[in-house]
Amino acid sequence: MSSDPFSSRRCRVALLGLGTVGSAVAGRLTAADASAPIQLTHIFDRRAAEKRALFPSPTIVWTDRIEDALCSDADVIVEAIGGVDPAAGWVRAALAAGKSVVTANKQVIARDGASLLTFAARQGRQLRFEAAVGGAMPIVRAIGEGLAGDRITRIAAILNGTTNAVLSRMEESGCALDEAVRQARARGYAEADPSADLDGDDARAKLAILCALAFGLRVDPARIPLRSTSAISAADLAAARRRGAAIRQIAHAAYDRETSTLTAWVAPIEVPRDSIFGRTTGAQNAAVITGEHSGETGIFGAGAGGGATAVAIISDIAAIARDKAAIVPAPVLAVPHAVRGSTTLNAELAEPAEQEDLCVLSGLWVDRRLQAEVV
Amino acid sequence: MSSDPFSSRRCRVALLGLGTVGSAVAGRLTAADASAPIQLTHIFDRRAAEKRALFPSPTIVWTDRIEDALCSDADVIVEAIGGVDPAAGWVRAALAAGKSVVTANKQVIARDGASLLTFAARQGRQLRFEAAVGGAMPIVRAIGEGLAGDRITRIAAILNGTTNAVLSRMEESGCALDEAVRQARARGYAEADPSADLDGDDARAKLAILCALAFGLRVDPARIPLRSTSAISAADLAAARRRGAAIRQIAHAAYDRETSTLTAWVAPIEVPRDSIFGRTTGAQNAAVITGEHSGETGIFGAGAGGGATAVAIISDIAAIARDKAAIVPAPVLAVPHAVRGSTTLNAELAEPAEQEDLCVLSGLWVDRRLQAEVV
Repeated sequence: MSSDPFSSRRCRVALLGLGTVGSAVAGRLTAADASAPIQLTHIFDRRAAEKRALFPSPTIVWTDRIEDALCSDADVIVEAIGGVDPAAGWVRAALAAGKSVVTANKQVIARDGASLLTFAARQGRQLRFEAAVGGAMPIVRAIGEGLAGDRITRIAAILNGTTNAVLSRMEESGCALDEAVRQARARGYAEADPSADLDGDDARAKLAILCALAFGLRVDPARIPLRSTSAISAADLAAARRRGAAIRQIAHAAYDRETSTLTAWVAPIEVPRDSIFGRTTGAQNAAVITGEHSGETGIFGAGAGGGATAVAIISDIAAIARDKAAIVPAPVLAVPHAVRGSTTLNAELAEPAEQEDLCVLSGLWVDRRLQAEVV
Repeated sequence: MSSDPFSSRRCRVALLGLGTVGSAVAGRLTAADASAPIQLTHIFDRRAAEKRALFPSPTIVWTDRIEDALCSDADVIVEAIGGVDPAAGWVRAALAAGKSVVTANKQVIARDGASLLTFAARQGRQLRFEAAVGGAMPIVRAIGEGLAGDRITRIAAILNGTTNAVLSRMEESGCALDEAVRQARARGYAEADPSADLDGDDARAKLAILCALAFGLRVDPARIPLRSTSAISAADLAAARRRGAAIRQIAHAAYDRETSTLTAWVAPIEVPRDSIFGRTTGAQNAAVITGEHSGETGIFGAGAGGGATAVAIISDIAAIARDKAAIVPAPVLAVPHAVRGSTTLNAELAEPAEQEDLCVLSGLWVDRRLQAEVV
């Protein structure tokens, strides 16, 4: 309940990786108005020598040797490398060295989150990953803590800011997908190769993390069916618009506890233009979480970009700085009996019961009769 | 990262008050599928003798003497009494007795939250209050933890489910306010005397809590200007509709750190029908939080009703059960140099700069040219 969440004693931070996210974190932590108790002490980057001019500070140790960071006197390691290797090993090594870890790495958490969290708990350290899903939108805390008192049955979300920026750019300008990708890249929202975003790999790793948090399920992201957004054309969007719809890459998961069946998919589908998802444009993310007792809870916010991701990372550092002995819930995950996709949904939906079966979202800004035609 | 957030050792709970919220909590904790590690052991209610049939259990101690609950062997006291007296004193007494406390009491937290949190920290215990603002919508965690890594500049929200249900009912049916209040009461969303809801007292207590979390400000709720919703007529709503608008009770706070000036008010204003607020109907709550680095983050969900509030309370109990030694941030609050209201906004807004000055909300579902006419 303080404007300065860093009001306890000093917390030393070592940063791994100075890409878009790492640079945003370093910028925040070295800014004139940065909170004194959080101190950036080490930066590891393969190109440390050439990058050190970016954040000139006599108190930061720069290195291109990972051991220097892992064996430093930092309290917290911020992993902003991305990808599974070598990041996963370094996260584990940091925990083994008695550090707490903050990461934005959805691939590592989706694959190894459960075992890393258990290891962290055994070490008496924390592994926090708010930044791994939803950028600045605090969905990890919303599902893992805020709605922990409910039984969650369904998640529907836009989890990939790049794809959303591309689709809404196409919608806005009528341009082709290639051109929209070029523009997203120019704005720093797309990788040189955006296929992990467009194909859905990125969103399904995030969806797997949310399945663990919401349903207590261990889901191999590779088991979640995908349909790529890369084949969407300007003509598809124009046709959707004529039907009052927009096309969005939706990540969806519903869990039937009685049969232990998870229905999950990531696909471009038509959504009503005036639904929460239709209204999510640019690099925004949005999610609607359905609970047995709370009904639908929604959250939306900046889903991509260094600044937004840095907010989530710094919030996690602040939580550790405030309470170094806090226990981050270690997972007890079950494997679902079955995982099925529902990417071939009917265009026309009739009965409410049938709609439900077809993963139709009801709620505040989602029409009861969502035309969930997979494009 | 578990479907069962209660996976650590047993946590004994004493419940104070068996009204709408208390009954919902008792119902959840005594349900067949309740989590074993959280055990409802004591219920205090002035009418314990007549209510004990509601939750027949040989393991629950019923009492109409507060001492029996405060001096029990419970780990956590759930305060569901409401109002300042005697609830505030009982919360303090519970902390003094070494209990952690979970409360839904916005009046107590708005008035005494800072000192109670400090006292709790000194006792090595926790005071949690997710249920005090926004029902099931986890806005306390979103602002206090998820966005702690940003500098929040503005909050705009629908925080009173009763008033929102009344306004959206009038809008839907064309009925008068009195009739809409009667219907809300029949659905359990309105008190016998709904004036605290309609006049804005309820929303400004919640807004004062959010000002503490977001801006680190101690704000006496009585200093936040109100305009009552009770004078809104069906004709006002019809006129708003002709302008493409809806009328909503909005709680708004913006903080200028340079001048230490808080601009805050609760009032019925016109909002675009297709904005996030225009689309929030029934007993839902919604909030848009603006941060310097994250832009706008939104959250919405069930804002009233025992079931929704119970979700927030049980989430807080689960957090304590999981980590009995967790540190809930104790407040370091400043008093703003000035608090001013802006309830006399121009009907017609011209320049963006002027709009900004007039607390106009930009963002995902809020038109840039919000017609912020106070009704």
